[in-house]
Amino acid sequence: MINQVREKMNSSKIDTLWITDTHSIDFLTKYHCEAGERFIGLCITQQEVILVLNHLFEYDGISEVQVVYYYDFEDVHELISKHTVGKVGVDKFMSTQFSLPLSKSFDLVIGSDCVDRLRAIKNENEIQKMVAASKLNDYVMSLVPSLLKEGVSEKEVAVKIQKLFFDNGADALSFQTIVAFGENCADPHAVPSDRKLKKDESIIIDMGCKLNGYCSDMTRTFFLNKNPIKEIYDIVLLANQEAIKAIKPGCKFSDIDKVARMIIEKAGYGVHFNHRLGHGIGKEVHEPYDVSASNDALIEPGMCFSIEPGIYVKNQFGVRIEDLVYVNQDGVAVLFNEYTKEDEVIK
Amino acid sequence: MINQVREKMNSSKIDTLWITDTHSIDFLTKYHCEAGERFIGLCITQQEVILVLNHLFEYDGISEVQVVYYYDFEDVHELISKHTVGKVGVDKFMSTQFSLPLSKSFDLVIGSDCVDRLRAIKNENEIQKMVAASKLNDYVMSLVPSLLKEGVSEKEVAVKIQKLFFDNGADALSFQTIVAFGENCADPHAVPSDRKLKKDESIIIDMGCKLNGYCSDMTRTFFLNKNPIKEIYDIVLLANQEAIKAIKPGCKFSDIDKVARMIIEKAGYGVHFNHRLGHGIGKEVHEPYDVSASNDALIEPGMCFSIEPGIYVKNQFGVRIEDLVYVNQDGVAVLFNEYTKEDEVIK
Repeated sequence: MINQVREKMNSSKIDTLWITDTHSIDFLTKYHCEAGERFIGLCITQQEVILVLNHLFEYDGISEVQVVYYYDFEDVHELISKHTVGKVGVDKFMSTQFSLPLSKSFDLVIGSDCVDRLRAIKNENEIQKMVAASKLNDYVMSLVPSLLKEGVSEKEVAVKIQKLFFDNGADALSFQTIVAFGENCADPHAVPSDRKLKKDESIIIDMGCKLNGYCSDMTRTFFLNKNPIKEIYDIVLLANQEAIKAIKPGCKFSDIDKVARMIIEKAGYGVHFNHRLGHGIGKEVHEPYDVSASNDALIEPGMCFSIEPGIYVKNQFGVRIEDLVYVNQDGVAVLFNEYTKEDEVIK
Repeated sequence: MINQVREKMNSSKIDTLWITDTHSIDFLTKYHCEAGERFIGLCITQQEVILVLNHLFEYDGISEVQVVYYYDFEDVHELISKHTVGKVGVDKFMSTQFSLPLSKSFDLVIGSDCVDRLRAIKNENEIQKMVAASKLNDYVMSLVPSLLKEGVSEKEVAVKIQKLFFDNGADALSFQTIVAFGENCADPHAVPSDRKLKKDESIIIDMGCKLNGYCSDMTRTFFLNKNPIKEIYDIVLLANQEAIKAIKPGCKFSDIDKVARMIIEKAGYGVHFNHRLGHGIGKEVHEPYDVSASNDALIEPGMCFSIEPGIYVKNQFGVRIEDLVYVNQDGVAVLFNEYTKEDEVIK
């Protein structure tokens, strides 16, 4: 894997690559460490692979890596400089407190892409773990309609869903569960409030859990009693289904975004679909690459991402339907999660 | 508050300050937004306060702030540059993907301290919220001894503790609960494993929850059946108690670290206390300022931090005892959490 990174460094003329994203470090070394505010960095050159790590942690990853430990009271900037040569690629997520001193002595560019493209392509073992996480998500979603009763609050439902995840074996949440009722559904990142559910309202549930280190993520829009915006719901559903059908290796991510966006635009709701169609997913809930108008990267087998079109009308309602897909070796887009999208009315 | 930031900018000769830490933005604007990989930045000059925010989110903070919205497909680097003048202070946590383009045209320094010192001093309302979070932590800790039975695994205990937090009203965990048995206690950041508990072993429980946006954090070391390292336990306990007694406004953080470290060093275990004594805490579980040998900042009333000495002997055992304290207006260090440190043996 390290050699594949080196090939990419070569083609970008990068002499030293500093990777600080803990998930990327894990991907390359099989060592995962959340060092918090303490520096952790994997330094790759054509000759060496060095991990700069606080003494608090103990490396147990692949043997190819040489570990340089430091204590809380040591100057880590000096250590970083010492192992740097030539043109430097730095992680896009590196804290500026570490990159800024380095930029005073070296020519810096963002070098994350040397790892991101390798990370985005999941192997069979990773795919199996993602299937398992989505299966658990399907199961918990199947219990959600029974929680949605008149008078219950968004917060109450969110807490119950989160408990269901842990009761059923989840290691963690992929993100804080989104539960939104009525006009709150118009906010794609709604935070659960004390707002209570009324009849004939839309309900957005956007949720996911981690299992064995991999994430699930799914959104369903329900309605209590009846669906008064069936027309809107069907537009979003069609956009979701047609975008998934369009996924093929060699396609641009931006083309898939366009398929969904055109359906919603033609129906007259373009301005109400105000976010990208989807995002990469794996160990982290948001990974490269985006399914968005501005991403012309090409889809390859093994990539996993979300397809989540939505229509949001402020102060009124919102609908979003999200699935996770991966592109298999035959070039077919396969759904990770399978919970129905056709059974949205809760009686 | 913004004007206090401006005074600090003046004394550091900073013309434009870019704050990207979402908790610092919340502190200054009363608006909290976790924008994930999307840019969010508060830009402060002597004339203006601008928040650059993705269109997905809706600002509802203080009115003094002018919001500049952007879409997923727009070039945010241009927006950042456009609002920047003169010498620039950037957030230490700013992603390099955003600071690097800025560094090509402007003189950059780390400017976080203009906000960090203000944030570190909590008001009465914040203190009350931190007391409540620690009260809940005390309560859950009081239930922990009943979970610690021969043959139970670290993971099982961690899952049960996390459920207890949610069952009792926690909004979230401050961090993934640490449960370590026997030789695993020698790792200060142990991750719960399938390791099962045996008699006469040490048990480290390091846990905390969030309530109303504020964190708790406490560590206790227990023993099942008997404490075979009472001598070690008492050294750590003394270091914890004496450090807390030494806290006074005007003291350096490094002096408090020294009090605990000297006690452990004199007892012959200096090399086995391999981390800082403590960390600031508030909305985030780790905030400035560290209680460490390298931090000569002065303690002020209203500051909240942890005191957590430990002794770790590799492949054998570990002891850590952690409390949260704050310095009240009378200059006295007060404990947030009150769970006993004298009752460590579980029969």
